[in-house]
Amino acid sequence: MERRIVVAVDESEESKYALSWCLKNLISESSKDTIILLNVRPSPPVYPALDGTGYIFSSDIMATMDKYSKDLAEAVLEKAKMICQSSSRVTVETKLGCGDAREVICEQVEKLGGDLLVMGSHGYGAFKRAFLGSVSNHCANNTKCPVLIVKRPKA
Amino acid sequence: MERRIVVAVDESEESKYALSWCLKNLISESSKDTIILLNVRPSPPVYPALDGTGYIFSSDIMATMDKYSKDLAEAVLEKAKMICQSSSRVTVETKLGCGDAREVICEQVEKLGGDLLVMGSHGYGAFKRAFLGSVSNHCANNTKCPVLIVKRPKA
Repeated sequence: MERRIVVAVDESEESKYALSWCLKNLISESSKDTIILLNVRPSPPVYPALDGTGYIFSSDIMATMDKYSKDLAEAVLEKAKMICQSSSRVTVETKLGCGDAREVICEQVEKLGGDLLVMGSHGYGAFKRAFLGSVSNHCANNTKCPVLIVKRPKA
Repeated sequence: MERRIVVAVDESEESKYALSWCLKNLISESSKDTIILLNVRPSPPVYPALDGTGYIFSSDIMATMDKYSKDLAEAVLEKAKMICQSSSRVTVETKLGCGDAREVICEQVEKLGGDLLVMGSHGYGAFKRAFLGSVSNHCANNTKCPVLIVKRPKA
């Protein structure tokens, strides 16, 4: 089998657990599968934003925030890559997306030719989830390929 | 690995596809996994129901309907068992539940010691889903173990 398994990763422990579960349970020794690590970072704001005290962020600060978000995304992908390489000889690709995680994940899974999407169940925080709905539910309903939602057991 | 994989099955094509996908993608030749086929049939009504023309169903008719539902459930499990046995030498158990599919599946996965729940995405019909919400979403949110939702590709 030569499957393309897309794993949505972010900085959460849930997402690391989902990746490890996938490597342990889906990838055999002799596997020719490819793991595609996908991280989606939020779009930078188009207009200058107000901070809590009413000041407008300068473009300098916004550039710094954008750089921080890019660096974080790259660090997440690097870390995930290391997790893959330490546990198997599976081929690894990485993909960095930008925008609404729910939409970008569904879009990218198709573009990347994914045979399976793997994701943690609570990767995007309780606060955001309450407003935007669960990322994993959205993806389960809107991708064409099978979706594996991995929950981290409570310690 | 000796995993206990619970596969929720019903009479739909989606559910057959999910089972086949699971057998093909998750179960290796040398696997010691156990597949537990779980079918949940609706509870029989407690009170006599009115049919469309206002007649009350007699207890005879209700008993016949209940028997039909039981027979259907057993046929579904039998068929699913054959699908398993034709494609691998995996150990197969069956479990028949009764009640609201969403609740009974979550409850049984835990009772049965499931390491993974596999299900089709549209097993319970568009009409019911609109009122009750998606069975697979509910299970993804309410079971402790990973949930694999398999969508049948449109032909």
